[in-house]
Amino acid sequence: MQSFDLDKTDLLRIKTALEADDAELEKVLKEYHASEIALLFEQLEQEDKERIINILPTDVASEVLSEMDEEHSPGELLLNLHPEKRTEIVEELDYDDATDIISQLDEDEQQEILEDIDADDASSIRALLNYAEDTAGGLMNSELIKVNIRLDKKEALDEIIRQSEEMEEFYTIYVVDDADTLQGILSIKDVIKAHADAKVSDLVKRDPVYVRAELDQEEVARLISQYNLTTIPVVDDHMKLLGRVTVDDIIDVMEQENTEDILKISGVSEDEELSGNWKDAVKSRLPWLVINLATAYLAASVIRHFDDTVSQVKGIAAYMTIIAGMGGNAATQALAVTVRRISLSNLTDSQAYNTVLKEFLVGMLNGAANGLVVFCIALFYDANPMLGLVLFLAMTGNLIIAGITGASIPLVLKRVGIDPAVASSIIITTFTDCAGFLLPLYLATKLLLKH
Amino acid sequence: MQSFDLDKTDLLRIKTALEADDAELEKVLKEYHASEIALLFEQLEQEDKERIINILPTDVASEVLSEMDEEHSPGELLLNLHPEKRTEIVEELDYDDATDIISQLDEDEQQEILEDIDADDASSIRALLNYAEDTAGGLMNSELIKVNIRLDKKEALDEIIRQSEEMEEFYTIYVVDDADTLQGILSIKDVIKAHADAKVSDLVKRDPVYVRAELDQEEVARLISQYNLTTIPVVDDHMKLLGRVTVDDIIDVMEQENTEDILKISGVSEDEELSGNWKDAVKSRLPWLVINLATAYLAASVIRHFDDTVSQVKGIAAYMTIIAGMGGNAATQALAVTVRRISLSNLTDSQAYNTVLKEFLVGMLNGAANGLVVFCIALFYDANPMLGLVLFLAMTGNLIIAGITGASIPLVLKRVGIDPAVASSIIITTFTDCAGFLLPLYLATKLLLKH
Repeated sequence: MQSFDLDKTDLLRIKTALEADDAELEKVLKEYHASEIALLFEQLEQEDKERIINILPTDVASEVLSEMDEEHSPGELLLNLHPEKRTEIVEELDYDDATDIISQLDEDEQQEILEDIDADDASSIRALLNYAEDTAGGLMNSELIKVNIRLDKKEALDEIIRQSEEMEEFYTIYVVDDADTLQGILSIKDVIKAHADAKVSDLVKRDPVYVRAELDQEEVARLISQYNLTTIPVVDDHMKLLGRVTVDDIIDVMEQENTEDILKISGVSEDEELSGNWKDAVKSRLPWLVINLATAYLAASVIRHFDDTVSQVKGIAAYMTIIAGMGGNAATQALAVTVRRISLSNLTDSQAYNTVLKEFLVGMLNGAANGLVVFCIALFYDANPMLGLVLFLAMTGNLIIAGITGASIPLVLKRVGIDPAVASSIIITTFTDCAGFLLPLYLATKLLLKH
Repeated sequence: MQSFDLDKTDLLRIKTALEADDAELEKVLKEYHASEIALLFEQLEQEDKERIINILPTDVASEVLSEMDEEHSPGELLLNLHPEKRTEIVEELDYDDATDIISQLDEDEQQEILEDIDADDASSIRALLNYAEDTAGGLMNSELIKVNIRLDKKEALDEIIRQSEEMEEFYTIYVVDDADTLQGILSIKDVIKAHADAKVSDLVKRDPVYVRAELDQEEVARLISQYNLTTIPVVDDHMKLLGRVTVDDIIDVMEQENTEDILKISGVSEDEELSGNWKDAVKSRLPWLVINLATAYLAASVIRHFDDTVSQVKGIAAYMTIIAGMGGNAATQALAVTVRRISLSNLTDSQAYNTVLKEFLVGMLNGAANGLVVFCIALFYDANPMLGLVLFLAMTGNLIIAGITGASIPLVLKRVGIDPAVASSIIITTFTDCAGFLLPLYLATKLLLKH
């Protein structure tokens, strides 16, 4: 299969095939990977999706459902299928994927699906439904390969092959004792290459990195990325092995966390669906804009306080908007660098202190550089050196405030346990707007107005 | 190993151990994972890092170097080691990691390192040095397990075990013909479970997803994520197998691309190092601020054009900053959602059209909602219904402009092949600033001034 992007032609082909009979549709569908069909689903009607799922072989159909974005409601689709087909698909799904899909439904609907399937599968899925979606427990899969530490090589290999019957892929074998307590890990390679009389207890690598089921998924992603793991075992408080999180699940988590970061920092609610409709977008963004309106009035009240200065100092109304705007942009720069840095690693106190100090310095230098430009323009265009001085000082001051707030507010939020990305530019620019109006107007009043 | 974060205590322990003798230092180092040592290196002096690398066993030392962030110059560190130790480390490194580290150095320095090592390794690394760092070729590792399609099960298994001697991990076995042309893939499980008389040609899965060496790494990441792969084969124009990219390399790429996105959208040069010093930060941000200064003058010139209106209509100077600021924030919201959406999937023309239409609607509704608030305040606080009307119209108009520019500019940039994230808020807010001043001032001049 050549790797290429889907385009309109593909959508058109599927739509044309949907008008033909099942045999023709089946033939066309065969040319697409499950994840491609999941993408195409975003642009099809509900009834067409159901027809396609019914035609696809169960293993492909279940993969399509697990590949669909949550926002396109695979749960809904699953629920509407014929109960027999639905049961086949749920039993084919990995437990973690089945749980993700089913968790979108009401409790009654969950019940309806689960009572039809194999009792063992149902109880595994019910157990997973108890974990919060964004924790290690919600992310993990309870299907894994484990061998008892007492086995010898031959027994272990048989056991691995037996357990792998039902699994798509496995990279790591977990070693447990009789109480299912995690003892260590093994690679399949270690077992294949071992001497015939080797025992699992000789081969096991002890002290693996593990996580508890309650750990936040962002932390799980950070560990997997930091230790270059392909899979991480999940345990309970007594070190009992519950499941494993694999690196491919982490990629989705990272995409999601990164989307949330970029949205939050831009003043959009983190749960706005990127391809959602206008109603959701208004609901997600209007509250932030109303907060911004309130803070903008705060900044504007500064201007009103200096009404005389505004009408008497020619050009100051224009200049103050420049200084406020520059402050807002400088603060956004400092904010982006700091938020991103925090999300990649936890900063020590001295690193945090140095970050704020650095942003103070950067703000002062960038402020002075831009202040100088503004000074020169006031000097040569307005022929008013005192106005130039006012603007130079205001620009430098506001960019220092921008650097300090842009860096310190997310750091303080992180310290008190609030997500630093909510220090969105809307919050930060309140400071730079107020200071951006106050500094030039106050200085102009003192230095330029005749009293 | 319990999974925990490093803190000051760890740094202190290492620093104390550095004052003791080698035996004590070695003992302390044993308690840390290579990636943890790489993190601690960020806060150590050059000479301490060299001493630690010299003490560590070669396999751990090479892992530490490959885990170090590029911005902390592992290349420099490698270069300064004793040539013998250096050679051991380079030969231990995976080719892709060795290439990443060596590519940071000057050509002379690269030469110096490469001429000491095994000729085969050197030529493999030289080949990799030819690919641009941010392409599939620059990301791939040329060490992989491959079997000829003519082999039978026994031969294949022997071959896999022989080739895996030197490899840390492998999940996928590549099947090639005599000319090394990629034929398909196999999993180790397929081989183990096959009948004794099975042939590779029976077991091979044909039509795997593959990429060419020149493909941009962001696309590679998208494919691996979309198809849920753990590894993707890299081929040349004649389908000859060159290497493979593994999912753990992709995690680093994703972190990096996401950092670049969030920085660019906030008006910071994408290559600013998050933990870089103030000099780099000034160099990276000042150009954007100067561009912003120029565009701010453009917006300010709108205000100067209406000097009479500003001094005659009480409060308009304050109100126009509110309208411009609200536009800026609404544009940033639309921009963030659109940029993120583009970076997760390519939009079809009709999806792009619908996105702009949606943002138009959202802008109009959010504009009208906030416009109504501003109208009421003008009505009750300023007792000036005509001013209220001016502000209502200006707010609605500016938020419509915000929505349309925030969505369409990144989409247009993407179409003409420019990274959509450079449509940073600095560029977008130029539109909303100009319109945010022009609309209220123009309307106030027409509707409120006595002519």
